[in-house]
Amino acid sequence: MAAPDTVVDLAEKFAAFDELWAPKIIAQVNELHVKAVKVLGEFVWHQHDDTDETFIVVAGRLTISLEGRDDVQLGPGQLFVVPCGLPHCPVASEECHLLLLEPAGTPNTGDRPDTDRTAAEQWI
Amino acid sequence: MAAPDTVVDLAEKFAAFDELWAPKIIAQVNELHVKAVKVLGEFVWHQHDDTDETFIVVAGRLTISLEGRDDVQLGPGQLFVVPCGLPHCPVASEECHLLLLEPAGTPNTGDRPDTDRTAAEQWI
Repeated sequence: MAAPDTVVDLAEKFAAFDELWAPKIIAQVNELHVKAVKVLGEFVWHQHDDTDETFIVVAGRLTISLEGRDDVQLGPGQLFVVPCGLPHCPVASEECHLLLLEPAGTPNTGDRPDTDRTAAEQWI
Repeated sequence: MAAPDTVVDLAEKFAAFDELWAPKIIAQVNELHVKAVKVLGEFVWHQHDDTDETFIVVAGRLTISLEGRDDVQLGPGQLFVVPCGLPHCPVASEECHLLLLEPAGTPNTGDRPDTDRTAAEQWI
């Protein structure tokens, strides 16, 4: 776990892992985690019934498919908040580096813990 | 207020205002606000007795003076979480563009609402 009083360098954090779809916790603000994640390809449709989820693209491009709404396209320096309870599926046609903002303990696959995409929480 | 289901472009948001030390709310994640702020010069010493506060530097450089600890120096792509209750004072010798993560309703001057740096909450 990162010491709470250290400077967090995003480039260093993203350079420290290669795994895809496995969010790494890099900071905590009250009950909220800031996570770094690398993604490529299509994730699984899922929803978070008790929290919003924020995606901030640092590099690459991300599509977020949303149930009943138009897809959202994000590039570097763009963010989107998926509302609580809305089914969504992130898709990246090229490798994409993201920050996620969500409460500590939020599973990456939301209501779909049964899939092989489910990742354990890990600080880096 | 930004529609909750729109893409937020950080460059567009920072281009939309010139005021210094007046954080603009650009997104909400549950009870947390994501704010954009431009700073230059020295702020006021203050503390937030009920919340951590996260500083993420987008452009420029920021020094955060902390009571009883070494100053923290941040450049682009670096973040720091000021712990709840710790007196601090941001200082920027050149204009610096930041994101802040803190709960909705957090005053920018914390326990020092009496200073002329205190800014009203505003969405852009």
